[in-house]
Amino acid sequence: MQNYKFLIEYDGTRYNGWQRLKNNDETIQGKIETVLSRMTDKPVQLTGAGRTDAGVHARGQVANAFLDTGLGEADIRAYMNRYLPEDIRILSVEKEDERFHSRFCAREKLYCYYISTGEKPSAFLRKYLYHPGAEALRGLDRERMVEAASLLTGRHDFKAFCGNKHMKKSTVREVRLIDIDFFPEKEIIKISYRGDGFLQYMIRIMTGTLLEVGLGKKEPSEIPDILASGDRERAGFTAPACGLFLEEISF
Amino acid sequence: MQNYKFLIEYDGTRYNGWQRLKNNDETIQGKIETVLSRMTDKPVQLTGAGRTDAGVHARGQVANAFLDTGLGEADIRAYMNRYLPEDIRILSVEKEDERFHSRFCAREKLYCYYISTGEKPSAFLRKYLYHPGAEALRGLDRERMVEAASLLTGRHDFKAFCGNKHMKKSTVREVRLIDIDFFPEKEIIKISYRGDGFLQYMIRIMTGTLLEVGLGKKEPSEIPDILASGDRERAGFTAPACGLFLEEISF
Repeated sequence: MQNYKFLIEYDGTRYNGWQRLKNNDETIQGKIETVLSRMTDKPVQLTGAGRTDAGVHARGQVANAFLDTGLGEADIRAYMNRYLPEDIRILSVEKEDERFHSRFCAREKLYCYYISTGEKPSAFLRKYLYHPGAEALRGLDRERMVEAASLLTGRHDFKAFCGNKHMKKSTVREVRLIDIDFFPEKEIIKISYRGDGFLQYMIRIMTGTLLEVGLGKKEPSEIPDILASGDRERAGFTAPACGLFLEEISF
Repeated sequence: MQNYKFLIEYDGTRYNGWQRLKNNDETIQGKIETVLSRMTDKPVQLTGAGRTDAGVHARGQVANAFLDTGLGEADIRAYMNRYLPEDIRILSVEKEDERFHSRFCAREKLYCYYISTGEKPSAFLRKYLYHPGAEALRGLDRERMVEAASLLTGRHDFKAFCGNKHMKKSTVREVRLIDIDFFPEKEIIKISYRGDGFLQYMIRIMTGTLLEVGLGKKEPSEIPDILASGDRERAGFTAPACGLFLEEISF
């Protein structure tokens, strides 16, 4: 059995997220496992680096699986691309050491969140942007968002920014960088998040919180209190999945 | 009655093209006329600069219409964007002189055709590219395509490149520029066409012909003969609509 690493791109619009669910194949993991199982004529278990939620997209998801196959890497990739639906694409297949584990070996993840600021989102990007409407964003202040982002950056307990109320494991994560870019010509705001890992909905809740701060509904200075409270009710709303992209995993 | 000029973007995937058809509202023109008629409570006739075919997209379509309304330009745009489907977006609305006519006043049009050269097209761009498959494009020679393109450029009778067999009007057009760009990193080829106007399917047939020349199925030196013959059967295949974008109209 050889360990293989896959670099994967997907349009998450019509999927129930990365993680396979019982009796539900409409997940990215499920789709890929089905194709790999057919290819090798054996059950295959795929391990993803980031468990993206329903509707979240990826340009750089990484996963690995142990396969028993005589096919070379290029043929494995060609087989997968042929039998996977058109909204899932395998960018590369590489052999890896048996100790390589997509989730445990991931050192850093980069996610980006895209917001449309115009009257109407682009006809071509509409499925890949959050569009609250130009009215709802009136007066949005980038400086306030940057100040709040700097207070979110660092090693903290992000329990207040976790969508899973019954999370039993540690909710401490290190956010290494939050970049907020306004592109007025394109009517797009891009928020980039780098960190060692993110809790469920954490990026979407941070995005909602940054928007609320930018709109004056919260003060940047409230961020340390929100973090310390561990109270999900005190953080901002959960921004929708369609604007979120898993861009890159570093090992 | 005031003459208004509209700059329009659309994803043509689910439409029967620009031009309104009897008993069929699934056209871009039909959708926009319906919204403008409701806005003004009067029938409205819209004139488009380019009659894009079924499935063709636009980033810079221009149209004009005479409207009787008390609304300002920004309010007209907001109304249209609100009631038009999400795959049609009005980029701008401007008042124009009564003599302005989108089709007759257009001096030059820029169309671009996008081809995916990889094993599988991008999960995000798949609806906006023609994907013949990497195998089908093996050995594609850009220099041969450039040579053929230079022979297509100029003022010619393009009858052999016209999809309408019963075309009664002149089939003479001036193609001012054909640029062929290979982007190997993105696995995309972009062919740009500038001209005073294009016949039905003309860009798609020129694209098919350039691909056949690039693959060695035709010689660049055949182009003058194909043009002179006026015979549709001698030109190349009609490349699919999904790769074609109306990018810009100059007045």
